[in-house]
Amino acid sequence: MNNEHEQTDLPENSGKQPVTPRTPAEKHQVVNRLKRIEGQVRGIQNMVEDDRYCVDILVQLSAIDSALKNVGYSLMERHTKHCVSDAIRSGEGEEAIDELMKVLKQFSK
Amino acid sequence: MNNEHEQTDLPENSGKQPVTPRTPAEKHQVVNRLKRIEGQVRGIQNMVEDDRYCVDILVQLSAIDSALKNVGYSLMERHTKHCVSDAIRSGEGEEAIDELMKVLKQFSK
Amino acid sequence: MNNEHEQTDLPENSGKQPVTPRTPAEKHQVVNRLKRIEGQVRGIQNMVEDDRYCVDILVQLSAIDSALKNVGYSLMERHTKHCVSDAIRSGEGEEAIDELMKVLKQFSK
Amino acid sequence: MNNEHEQTDLPENSGKQPVTPRTPAEKHQVVNRLKRIEGQVRGIQNMVEDDRYCVDILVQLSAIDSALKNVGYSLMERHTKHCVSDAIRSGEGEEAIDELMKVLKQFSK
Repeated sequence: MNNEHEQTDLPENSGKQPVTPRTPAEKHQVVNRLKRIEGQVRGIQNMVEDDRYCVDILVQLSAIDSALKNVGYSLMERHTKHCVSDAIRSGEGEEAIDELMKVLKQFSK
Repeated sequence: MNNEHEQTDLPENSGKQPVTPRTPAEKHQVVNRLKRIEGQVRGIQNMVEDDRYCVDILVQLSAIDSALKNVGYSLMERHTKHCVSDAIRSGEGEEAIDELMKVLKQFSK
Repeated sequence: MNNEHEQTDLPENSGKQPVTPRTPAEKHQVVNRLKRIEGQVRGIQNMVEDDRYCVDILVQLSAIDSALKNVGYSLMERHTKHCVSDAIRSGEGEEAIDELMKVLKQFSK
Repeated sequence: MNNEHEQTDLPENSGKQPVTPRTPAEKHQVVNRLKRIEGQVRGIQNMVEDDRYCVDILVQLSAIDSALKNVGYSLMERHTKHCVSDAIRSGEGEEAIDELMKVLKQFSK
């Protein structure tokens, strides 16, 4: 009923790097999406200060959550297309896929 | 199999207000949590700029997501304890509960 | 970053009852939805036996998951409209809402 | 704010097969987990018939949901270790990873 225990314990800093460095264009695109999310989080602070209706705030929180998930999915896709694929081709897929599954579970919770 | 259609269509701005205005202390607490989240989102921008490992970034994104959900749950709790309870006591619970269920579904997606 | 600890510990059997007993029609409707889900779970067993494509199986699992969530939401709605509302009207809303929030978090994970 | 539109439209039956057929032992293990879930779904039908407390039922529904997700994750892991890895090694990783990401998003919703 409860499997918290077997759960993921990914380190905060693995010391690893992406096998293919992100291009400036790629960085730019992800950072822009994060800046927009940052702006949305600030927008919610204003809604709280203005004592806006709780449900209206929750609708905005859901939108941020959704935007954040989408950033996550695109990072995960890139990770699979580069790091995981590379590991598979050099015969070290097992470990890379285990790590991918762990982060996926943590992210989908 | 698919019930996107019956899905929620809560307005972005309902024009409503919380029945009990948030106290300065309450506002302060929520805003602080959001400021911390804002800082975490900025932290992720730095991780991207520094070309940090995708899985490390995803672990941080999960943490933000979790913090955001917790803000949402505490807003939802306050909403239920004030607005929804008030509506129930004045015989208008039906509509308030329907709205609560809609936002809850949207938020849990 | 991690709040497993403050997490819900709802008992498996609280010994409580719904304040308004479910009508035969209500029971019938929920049981029918669950029977359909049961059939879908059996369908997946067949897909596994027939060595069907993993992604096709996952698409069906998502459909079941979605149907299960919908049963949960409708139980939660009924619970809020009856048990929680009743508790609120008799001045015991606090405890009922805390319990609702706990189960909601557990269910949305 | 809303990206239902770009969302996944995986077919119910792709006509594909796993690259490595499941062994009888593998099938047995997955089918057993599904049989247990089927039993849990029947257990909930009884709880509804016995007019058990809504929150108790919801706790059980969460447990089933969690068991179902775990079956999904293990299918996804096997899929990645066999079908996706195989596709990557034969230079067709792109399409396989796109499909994996789609099903992952659908499943995590």
